[in-house]
Amino acid sequence: MLKTLLISDLTPKEEIDRRIEELKKHMASHHVSFSIILQNVDLFYFTGTIQKGVLVIPLEGEPLFFVEKSLNRAAIETPLEIIPVKSDRDIKNILIEKHILKGKGGMELDVVPVLVYERWKTLLTFENIVDISKLIKEVRLVKSEFEIQQIKKSGDIIAKVFDKAKEVIQEGMREVDIAAFLESEGRIQGHQGFLRMRGLNQEMMNVYITHGYSATITSAGDVPISGVGVTHAIAQGPSVNRVQRGIPLLIDYGGGYNGYITDETRTFVVGEMNDTFKKAYEIARDIVDDATTNGCEGMNGTELYNRALRLVKKARLEDFFMGHGEGKVSFIGHGLGLEINELPVITPRHSIILKEGMVFAFEPKFIFPGEGAVGIEVDYIVRPGRLERVTDTPIDVFYI
Amino acid sequence: MLKTLLISDLTPKEEIDRRIEELKKHMASHHVSFSIILQNVDLFYFTGTIQKGVLVIPLEGEPLFFVEKSLNRAAIETPLEIIPVKSDRDIKNILIEKHILKGKGGMELDVVPVLVYERWKTLLTFENIVDISKLIKEVRLVKSEFEIQQIKKSGDIIAKVFDKAKEVIQEGMREVDIAAFLESEGRIQGHQGFLRMRGLNQEMMNVYITHGYSATITSAGDVPISGVGVTHAIAQGPSVNRVQRGIPLLIDYGGGYNGYITDETRTFVVGEMNDTFKKAYEIARDIVDDATTNGCEGMNGTELYNRALRLVKKARLEDFFMGHGEGKVSFIGHGLGLEINELPVITPRHSIILKEGMVFAFEPKFIFPGEGAVGIEVDYIVRPGRLERVTDTPIDVFYI
Repeated sequence: MLKTLLISDLTPKEEIDRRIEELKKHMASHHVSFSIILQNVDLFYFTGTIQKGVLVIPLEGEPLFFVEKSLNRAAIETPLEIIPVKSDRDIKNILIEKHILKGKGGMELDVVPVLVYERWKTLLTFENIVDISKLIKEVRLVKSEFEIQQIKKSGDIIAKVFDKAKEVIQEGMREVDIAAFLESEGRIQGHQGFLRMRGLNQEMMNVYITHGYSATITSAGDVPISGVGVTHAIAQGPSVNRVQRGIPLLIDYGGGYNGYITDETRTFVVGEMNDTFKKAYEIARDIVDDATTNGCEGMNGTELYNRALRLVKKARLEDFFMGHGEGKVSFIGHGLGLEINELPVITPRHSIILKEGMVFAFEPKFIFPGEGAVGIEVDYIVRPGRLERVTDTPIDVFYI
Repeated sequence: MLKTLLISDLTPKEEIDRRIEELKKHMASHHVSFSIILQNVDLFYFTGTIQKGVLVIPLEGEPLFFVEKSLNRAAIETPLEIIPVKSDRDIKNILIEKHILKGKGGMELDVVPVLVYERWKTLLTFENIVDISKLIKEVRLVKSEFEIQQIKKSGDIIAKVFDKAKEVIQEGMREVDIAAFLESEGRIQGHQGFLRMRGLNQEMMNVYITHGYSATITSAGDVPISGVGVTHAIAQGPSVNRVQRGIPLLIDYGGGYNGYITDETRTFVVGEMNDTFKKAYEIARDIVDDATTNGCEGMNGTELYNRALRLVKKARLEDFFMGHGEGKVSFIGHGLGLEINELPVITPRHSIILKEGMVFAFEPKFIFPGEGAVGIEVDYIVRPGRLERVTDTPIDVFYI
């Protein structure tokens, strides 16, 4: 019965096996003898379930998937063999018995808190543990066709939410009211509920609605536009700001299906936009068109950024590109997958050659202090000779 | 203009000063010379803003609040003086200049990841750092009247959402569709957007709708009922399960206002419940009535748990109380505040004397394997001589 209630596909065994083999290759080249996976997203990636457990991957031999609870649910969801345990102590005993604890161990030290790390070192009486988060990120960077299918289904939710937005937006509505409608629509269309962002203090919503002034306010996050929120305790997302004629309204929506996140933005306006906004919007569209036409496997991410920047400079819009003042960010794109801040980052700061199967959001946006913002965000799958769009939703302004 | 968009109150200066003084008292008794606060919720608690920054509290002298961005927003929100910085290196230089780095330092090692901790130790060339998360939790445990006001406004959102639920629920609807309506209603009524849970892998939604079978499925979380979700990648929350006549439907909703979380559950049913559910529901109500009448400041949390357990045993419902089998949890209540897993925990496992200003959710629930669940969750503020309910919403079954 449990299976009949789940609307998304379980991860096939070949997927799990391949992912673990990939990680082992990275472990071998970094001389890591065993990895201990504790974070729930990595656990889901490598086991197919997010139940309470610990995955130990020795460089040699089979992975050991220890599950505390729910055993029933984990057994349905993972193709791996399950070792039921009551506590960490049981895990320790089995690891000692199987002579796993030798050489150099690896843990996800980018997310595992110090107290958890110290507890494991004490429990295992094993000190030589290094960070493997970079290795895991490398494995997760290139998506399989199974993953791309999930990402496309995640994109389908975005497309439906943008369709709904066209019906919902009206002059005088508050950003939060529009967000409430769209949040609801996404859920009805199969959205998983929330999205994940890796790291300390990384928080996000499913729907960002920003309009005029509220789109220009800088937040704590490393994002070009995040909104004001309804409270300084959250300080991001839609606010009580009301829709005015002629002012662009941005909807930045994150799809979520079977764990996979998509992230697109469209600009909506009641009436007509002024020339400043119009011109900036044309450049944003030119940048997306250029990436769609000319981007491809083998291109460097820095080149994709620099092509965009050339268009921006030609239009003399550099001061407003990707934020202004303290709010300016240094990237135009970010990787997507089970978390919204995956690799690759499309920035002039880091060289990365695009490979088939990488998936990223690409978001040329212009922010005009005090006035408002315009922009587009689309998601791309890197293919040989091209970048494939995740959704078919047009990138024009939606006039209401 | 930013202020006019925020619907919640800024934290008064006296609040911030008192909180910092309280932490200093705890630091003194644990011989901690300075604390470095990095986690956003603790930052919000001690500064009044959640902008990107670091708060250093020396045992002697004024707190140093370093802000990277947004400087504008932080300046509006915090009563503390701001020290603008471009990077961690600036912070290091100021800490050295002011001779802060001496004795024993403190960090939130329950949440700070290993790599972040290592980076700070290297940056400061300072090794002697201990965990202060327990001290911070102690300070945050007792709520001020200002905080209780915020909690009551958070509870007002719950009350409105339960009112809406009575209108919305119909036979044949999916749990996710009901959740979509209520998520939306909460947002319209001022909900902040999401809720926070402290620690690695701690995730939650605003709305849990569970009905019959879906209420009986165990999850990874340390909660009695969490639902099935729509995907094994999230594995909690409402599912596509449809409302059937006579089967209890539980709505567990988390209010969120100005950062403060409330958390209540009500049971709804279309038609009539069978005698098993009815009897269990009566016991749940007796437990809440008993706590409301007899709970008070000075009582031990273990006593509150044991009073409930006596009623459960008398009704021979022990096997179903707070879960069944691997899903059974060991508590009947948990603290509320800026995070949903605060102190006090109401459990036979830990002795804690209730003090005025403590706030906790109290949730007698019964889970019948394969059949369904019933229960109630109310929030209490500890007062002299009584427990004060946060909301006025009746605790009877809502018959549709």
